[in-house]
Amino acid sequence: MKKILIQLDTDKHPSTFDRIVAYDAGADEVLSYGGVTPGDVRGLVLSAVFTRGVPDLKTIAVWVGGFNVVMGEQILAEVQRSFFGPFRVSVMLDSNGCNTTAATAIAKLGKAYDLKGRKAVVVGLGPVGLRSALLLQQEGCSVTVTSIPPDLLGARYNPEIARQSLEMARQTSNLTIEDVPDWAALERCLGEAEVVVTAGPAGVQILRHDFWAKHPTLRWLVDFNLTEPLGIEGIKPSDDLVERDGKIILGPLAIGGPKMKVHKACVAKLFERNDLVLNIEGVYVIARETV
Amino acid sequence: MKKILIQLDTDKHPSTFDRIVAYDAGADEVLSYGGVTPGDVRGLVLSAVFTRGVPDLKTIAVWVGGFNVVMGEQILAEVQRSFFGPFRVSVMLDSNGCNTTAATAIAKLGKAYDLKGRKAVVVGLGPVGLRSALLLQQEGCSVTVTSIPPDLLGARYNPEIARQSLEMARQTSNLTIEDVPDWAALERCLGEAEVVVTAGPAGVQILRHDFWAKHPTLRWLVDFNLTEPLGIEGIKPSDDLVERDGKIILGPLAIGGPKMKVHKACVAKLFERNDLVLNIEGVYVIARETV
Amino acid sequence: MKKILIQLDTDKHPSTFDRIVAYDAGADEVLSYGGVTPGDVRGLVLSAVFTRGVPDLKTIAVWVGGFNVVMGEQILAEVQRSFFGPFRVSVMLDSNGCNTTAATAIAKLGKAYDLKGRKAVVVGLGPVGLRSALLLQQEGCSVTVTSIPPDLLGARYNPEIARQSLEMARQTSNLTIEDVPDWAALERCLGEAEVVVTAGPAGVQILRHDFWAKHPTLRWLVDFNLTEPLGIEGIKPSDDLVERDGKIILGPLAIGGPKMKVHKACVAKLFERNDLVLNIEGVYVIARETV
Repeated sequence: MKKILIQLDTDKHPSTFDRIVAYDAGADEVLSYGGVTPGDVRGLVLSAVFTRGVPDLKTIAVWVGGFNVVMGEQILAEVQRSFFGPFRVSVMLDSNGCNTTAATAIAKLGKAYDLKGRKAVVVGLGPVGLRSALLLQQEGCSVTVTSIPPDLLGARYNPEIARQSLEMARQTSNLTIEDVPDWAALERCLGEAEVVVTAGPAGVQILRHDFWAKHPTLRWLVDFNLTEPLGIEGIKPSDDLVERDGKIILGPLAIGGPKMKVHKACVAKLFERNDLVLNIEGVYVIARETV
Repeated sequence: MKKILIQLDTDKHPSTFDRIVAYDAGADEVLSYGGVTPGDVRGLVLSAVFTRGVPDLKTIAVWVGGFNVVMGEQILAEVQRSFFGPFRVSVMLDSNGCNTTAATAIAKLGKAYDLKGRKAVVVGLGPVGLRSALLLQQEGCSVTVTSIPPDLLGARYNPEIARQSLEMARQTSNLTIEDVPDWAALERCLGEAEVVVTAGPAGVQILRHDFWAKHPTLRWLVDFNLTEPLGIEGIKPSDDLVERDGKIILGPLAIGGPKMKVHKACVAKLFERNDLVLNIEGVYVIARETV
Repeated sequence: MKKILIQLDTDKHPSTFDRIVAYDAGADEVLSYGGVTPGDVRGLVLSAVFTRGVPDLKTIAVWVGGFNVVMGEQILAEVQRSFFGPFRVSVMLDSNGCNTTAATAIAKLGKAYDLKGRKAVVVGLGPVGLRSALLLQQEGCSVTVTSIPPDLLGARYNPEIARQSLEMARQTSNLTIEDVPDWAALERCLGEAEVVVTAGPAGVQILRHDFWAKHPTLRWLVDFNLTEPLGIEGIKPSDDLVERDGKIILGPLAIGGPKMKVHKACVAKLFERNDLVLNIEGVYVIARETV
């Protein structure tokens, strides 16, 4: 009996990345669907769970992906609502790579260092930022998440998108969230921080080297941005918990490699039982075992 | 040489059910197409039949599915028109499961009992109802098909849809069709019936228990409706030709299990030769061998 | 590690032909995308090249197909622009079969005869015509490409489409192109021709038998049109470099068979390295080795 992954992707064309990695992780067939909306989910899921007997349902799983994390979350919820008693299959969300990326980074940091009681600031209200913050909190940090200061975004600043991100972040999490109007305000937030995670858009520098190198309390710096300029000036993308200017740096390439291992481990886990739900918490458990 | 099933589905997203069952039935690859219209068919079919030599064309087959049975029929016709001399492949229609469902139910009944000369009434003018009626006629019954009485449908009654179903049924079959205005009229139709098949919409009760339990001539009751309330009050979905109140009951779950076996047997047959056309008659032959 | 072909098809539904032949040529999985536009390419390609390490990227390849050759060329260009340093995969264009068809025909002719210094006329400004002309030039012919005379097209003549084809042909090639207003003008172009290739629309006769049979210099005649009437009157589709009236004939069926071998050989080559670009020149090299 073939192991079948049903790929529900919110983009017009389902991700080649998710399809190929699914094969590499052991799926025998990937049934790929693009342009999926929440309304499409029930039929696709119900149709699938009635094809095999309940003891064999661990051979089928659902993958939710695509650029739009908000719609991905709606689809994940709809997948779970579609299950019918024991007629259910395992399901994972990784829209825009948000769960595997955040989980891998914080798992690497959390396994190497005891973060309990540390002050952490995450810069960026996107899915990767919010998920990283959640995991840091879970590791015992006191966490603040901030917006990206408009003066750092320059021409890329869009007040309407900024407002929406902020509202969404406040609605969907219990995290402490700061809307910072400029760099000076962010600098104040970072005052006593020991951990900083920059989760800004590609090619936007958040922290200047002269700022972080001299910062009195900062000890761990994590950056997700792989496009020059990096989110943290003066680091290397491949920095794998190396020390620079007395700080421990985790760069985007050092996250990307183990992220692929986490992604594959998660797909493999989906086929071990028929009732796994892998969102950020579930992915983090696997990331801690994998990185 | 891989066994390839080309899935032409009229729905936006091709059925996960049909895809997974195709793999389970032995197809090596399923080429799935969604949102297929009759105009799309010729190119897809011609393109496929020229890929392999005629002796190897039994390794390719076409599957027509999706919710819309009328469009499925048009697509099946167009598939057959696209064939070019010996350049043809086997093809099956099972839009909305209509053929495998009807064939499985009547095959179970027809194998267990001699229906020749029996009076049968099928309630419901949809694809499953009409196909069941056709097969009962083939088994030697004198068959009447009726509409669903509006008073039983209640708020779900839509006169325009009812009118279209009636017209479609009259145009596409030579069956005796009765348009019943209310329950009393249906009751008259059922007067001397020995077999009744309820093929109404999900969750609509057609026969009350106090009616059928005391009916003087009714002997066999078949129901396709799996959603409560069932089409026949007082039966169990799993009733597998069991006796209740002196009648033999075939419930929807007792049809669903062998239906899956019929479905798989049909897909396997498609790959035994390159000129099979499986619509209701062809599926019934396989159902009689399988259930 | 599975060999994966990413099929980027400009048609609504990705070609069944290209999918099935890809499997037959050794691809383990075909990831099929329909309705692909140049704007879709970057994400699909970048996403794929980061799934496996650079030494393994020869296990992934991209196929560009669909009816629209012009958009296919744009997509091929965009695929190449998307590569990122060593993160690249092999790619082939065969929209509407243009490359494999033209390459197979000219390879058969060029291997059997020395064409150096011959005068050749290609009738038809479509992708197959232009590609055939390019290859004949490469074989040392002096080549003229002409439009299809309106009086031969009859009711199928569309001045706007004719104008666009002419402009496109002039913009995208350095070939000598003649816009012929009628048969008499084409007859003059063919005056001293030794090779003629008819690449007109299906079912349009270009050369009458009484014309070519008595032509003083014509020696080789190639026709791509498989639909009656053929492009060259009095030949057989299966003519495989046979002599008729003192001329050597290559008919469309004699091209179609080896074309399939060339197509499969090309797909197999894509998986031998990660930096192959197969457009007309690359396909021709393989066709010369294959036919």
